[in-house]
Amino acid sequence: MGLIKDLQDIANILRCDSLTMTTKAKSGHPTSCLSAAEIISCLFFETMSYDTKNPDNPDNDEFILSKGHASPILYSALYHAGAIKHNLLKLRQISSPLEGHPISRSLKWAKVSTGSLGQGLSNGIGFALAAKMQKRKFHTFVLLGDSETAEGSIFEALQLASYYKLNNLTAIIDVNRLGERGETIYGHDLKQYKKIFSSFNWKTILINGHNIKQILKALKKARYSNKPTAIIAKTFKGKGVSFLEDNEKYHGEVLNEQQLKKALNEIPNSKMPKIKIEKPKSVRFKFKKTSLKLPKYNLSEHITTRLAYGQTLASLAKSDSSILAIDAEVSDSSHSDEVKKTSPKQFIETFIAEQDLISIALGLSKKSYKPFASAFSSFLTRAHDQIRMASISSANLTINGCHAGVSTGEDGAPQMGLEDIAMFRDLPNSNIFQPCDAVSTAKIVLLASKTKGVNYIRTLRPKTPVIYKNSEPFPISQFKILRQSKKDSAVLIGSGITVHEAIKAHELLKLKNISTAVIDLYCIKPLNSKKLINFIKSHGKKIVISEDHFKAGGIGEMLSEIISETKEKIQIKHLYVSGIPHSGPWYKLLEKYKINYSSIANAVMTK
Amino acid sequence: MGLIKDLQDIANILRCDSLTMTTKAKSGHPTSCLSAAEIISCLFFETMSYDTKNPDNPDNDEFILSKGHASPILYSALYHAGAIKHNLLKLRQISSPLEGHPISRSLKWAKVSTGSLGQGLSNGIGFALAAKMQKRKFHTFVLLGDSETAEGSIFEALQLASYYKLNNLTAIIDVNRLGERGETIYGHDLKQYKKIFSSFNWKTILINGHNIKQILKALKKARYSNKPTAIIAKTFKGKGVSFLEDNEKYHGEVLNEQQLKKALNEIPNSKMPKIKIEKPKSVRFKFKKTSLKLPKYNLSEHITTRLAYGQTLASLAKSDSSILAIDAEVSDSSHSDEVKKTSPKQFIETFIAEQDLISIALGLSKKSYKPFASAFSSFLTRAHDQIRMASISSANLTINGCHAGVSTGEDGAPQMGLEDIAMFRDLPNSNIFQPCDAVSTAKIVLLASKTKGVNYIRTLRPKTPVIYKNSEPFPISQFKILRQSKKDSAVLIGSGITVHEAIKAHELLKLKNISTAVIDLYCIKPLNSKKLINFIKSHGKKIVISEDHFKAGGIGEMLSEIISETKEKIQIKHLYVSGIPHSGPWYKLLEKYKINYSSIANAVMTK
Repeated sequence: MGLIKDLQDIANILRCDSLTMTTKAKSGHPTSCLSAAEIISCLFFETMSYDTKNPDNPDNDEFILSKGHASPILYSALYHAGAIKHNLLKLRQISSPLEGHPISRSLKWAKVSTGSLGQGLSNGIGFALAAKMQKRKFHTFVLLGDSETAEGSIFEALQLASYYKLNNLTAIIDVNRLGERGETIYGHDLKQYKKIFSSFNWKTILINGHNIKQILKALKKARYSNKPTAIIAKTFKGKGVSFLEDNEKYHGEVLNEQQLKKALNEIPNSKMPKIKIEKPKSVRFKFKKTSLKLPKYNLSEHITTRLAYGQTLASLAKSDSSILAIDAEVSDSSHSDEVKKTSPKQFIETFIAEQDLISIALGLSKKSYKPFASAFSSFLTRAHDQIRMASISSANLTINGCHAGVSTGEDGAPQMGLEDIAMFRDLPNSNIFQPCDAVSTAKIVLLASKTKGVNYIRTLRPKTPVIYKNSEPFPISQFKILRQSKKDSAVLIGSGITVHEAIKAHELLKLKNISTAVIDLYCIKPLNSKKLINFIKSHGKKIVISEDHFKAGGIGEMLSEIISETKEKIQIKHLYVSGIPHSGPWYKLLEKYKINYSSIANAVMTK
Repeated sequence: MGLIKDLQDIANILRCDSLTMTTKAKSGHPTSCLSAAEIISCLFFETMSYDTKNPDNPDNDEFILSKGHASPILYSALYHAGAIKHNLLKLRQISSPLEGHPISRSLKWAKVSTGSLGQGLSNGIGFALAAKMQKRKFHTFVLLGDSETAEGSIFEALQLASYYKLNNLTAIIDVNRLGERGETIYGHDLKQYKKIFSSFNWKTILINGHNIKQILKALKKARYSNKPTAIIAKTFKGKGVSFLEDNEKYHGEVLNEQQLKKALNEIPNSKMPKIKIEKPKSVRFKFKKTSLKLPKYNLSEHITTRLAYGQTLASLAKSDSSILAIDAEVSDSSHSDEVKKTSPKQFIETFIAEQDLISIALGLSKKSYKPFASAFSSFLTRAHDQIRMASISSANLTINGCHAGVSTGEDGAPQMGLEDIAMFRDLPNSNIFQPCDAVSTAKIVLLASKTKGVNYIRTLRPKTPVIYKNSEPFPISQFKILRQSKKDSAVLIGSGITVHEAIKAHELLKLKNISTAVIDLYCIKPLNSKKLINFIKSHGKKIVISEDHFKAGGIGEMLSEIISETKEKIQIKHLYVSGIPHSGPWYKLLEKYKINYSSIANAVMTK
């Protein structure tokens, strides 16, 4: 009985804090905190074992606030647990790590940033998979809002958690009935949630989310379940304050000082009880590492960069058990199936669910893994929001987009990634690589495994000839000069497939006595632009960029801006894909969309 | 019995065609066609009523091939129905409209392009909603692959079709067990599909997908159901050819000439029976139009552009029943709820399901509606693939992204749209508008309603002062010169929130006797760049661009490339957001991320 009272007291304190913090901040979502007060109290002060002094203790039970807008109650709980010492009253201020939504950069306890709804459960799959693979005992609890269960990503998570038998994962749905602008799709119909969740073979438990006893019992059942568990909790938004409770008007509205006073008067004035938070038992685990043998390729051999990607990743995986390949049902195209063949335990299939592909990779990356997530480059747009959130979570992981550009060929426009470079360039902490042959691919895969941030490797569908020796180094931010002379009239810049077109253009122009330099821009971001500009200055002060990508945010615009910052006048010719590309043989498409060798040569020859 | 035999004969012909077409094309997915042969035969030659001479007949039953890679069998069916006359043997050739996946640009019968899986059912919701609103009797049939049901977007569709009681929508799932790289998540477990689909309150019918009688019966039941219906059809990939049937090896593999011969020998050699395809009964429907009264605003009045967006859209909706507002649970933030208040029948709620927001809008747009789809600009990344497919479907619709940039303020990074301009610029047929005040917003909303392509309107969270008279025109591709003199030393270019910062910078510099011009780039794409360059040339040959957006693909890179194409040297200073933005008051964030008036003024004063 003491415990129940203590946890109710804490719930009251969390409520008071959430109201006070948001009133002080003049913005936020206090009523969304109030519905979760008892759930948070039970999780943080009874159910979960965690090392309050060390968020990175690998055996901590994990908590993800998928309904990130309820951040004040998370901050308050962490504060009272002794895990953080920040001033709660500085919520949402520019100087405070207590941001509007939990952000990894600011708060170590938020391993994944949340605030784009419907992603937390999928991140939780990453944690839970990591626990299984590392044989750790920790449990992952994800608190979801009811509104966010409308997101398709939730359902991707339901099917995969069940497929991977993640009985160490629990979703708690805070069914407070009200979304931003009124009632949710299912309101307080808890049975409807049960129907859906159990159709995916989850264990479901219906409870009163304000009843401490029921919450504790459900959480215990969840921990010892043989399936992933959904605790579907009936709650009330604004619970505990008469004029807020179940009131549609108060989403995302904060109280003024007078209302706050009134509200605080209604909540029992509790004293923080002394509660001992149990530390987790530590489990010994170490990744296995052996020596690495990168695959070798022969000069002039024709082989796809995607196959070299898969082969190299397989070698890496063999040498380091922290390397994981994760793929959205295209592993025989991306060739991440090479990992499956040689190290099947280091291969994760997400089926055609690109959103979860990325969210799970993010979760895994926060548990010491180095995930390499593969899909068609075009379908990575399906996970753009998840990629954005991985970046906002300061993640270290690698994403591979295969079948880039019109060189994809006959499959046509839907399968051609033509906006991916722009998408990845706009991430705050990204590195972007586009190898043109097997050797550079192998080196870049290795480089990505050692490079922090969100790495993107763009691979191609058609075979390309090997142009580098196996000994060639490919450091980050550099480029390769493939052809040059003292009388060059222009620099031909290619990346990926267009490197080969640039070489062909160079040869064609040579026959006409026009000298050109050729550059392979294998690393698009970061770029040693000073070195590049200097090279261009002494090789004709003219560049022809050919890229198998749309215009906006591609290599051409990037270089235009870099060049605009220099004092000297450099002429730029930019060849890129425009319009909706047609189906057809890839080399004919390079020609039709004017990014092939003859278009490059023409651009050199015209003013 | 004659009918059954006829339909089986047609199925055989469709099979032979699919195999022959793909062998000739040397690529494609013949086995994915074979599993659907009986289903397609029944739909196109018995169940559906459609005007074979007119794909745009608004009363045609509609068919969407969500599993777009099975395009050969669709083309073959349309050919034998007399709906198209293209040479089937030119499949996937650059000169043929029979592309790798069905593309609207090439094939009128493909109202929506498919090939990015899991979107067809949501497009079908748009069709089915249109039928309901127009009181038309047509039924929408969507053929899905089993693999693609793993996509979260499918589940968004399940919940919404059920919510909107779309008993005129039928999903047929071709459960052939095999995906690209092996067995699907549920294999041939039809009951598992039934469990999931029925948990969303769909009627479900399990059938043998190769049994014509069962297919016809199920389709009839579906047409007269009082709920949306899922026909879950057990099929075999490669059905009809012994060495292809249920064989994992043959996904996306075509037969060589010898294999083809062998395969064709196994399929009964049928003659095309004479089948009369029923024309639909025509229903009279006309949109209601009355005179439009745009809202008026007072100079210097402080009001958000998002409210002006909602108010204008409400006025438009009142004057024209083809205008629809569709919103992903943020209508009180985007203010599309203004439409709900005044014309509730023209408002569609998708709840927090941004993918379906766009896919449904696309479907509606193909049924003579002018949808305006709203969400936070940051969360439009969630629907990037759907937006891409809307563009590839040559759609005419408007998307509104509110809460753009760091001016979103305290909510923090996850809620700040900072890559949306790049995302929309890369669409082949997009127009991009960013108004800075209420008057320009009103004019732009009206403009978008009349402009073809995918229109994007970017709106702001904070209030901004009205700077234009109600009489001011805002034509497409133009910009506004807000300040200018004959002795300007630079042109300050703003868009949205930064227009006001540019004006402030101008005033500040005036105090220091530095003259500058100020431009409001309300239309980012298309842009009359010649006019802009000419203006810059005669106003200091220096520009300072300030944008509340990341660097890649934003306004700065766009203008850098445009300027690089001119002969003259124009100095460019580009201010943009970098890093992961923090929570805080919006004006402090403009300062912190150096896109505010003082940073603009500094950029003018430094070389």
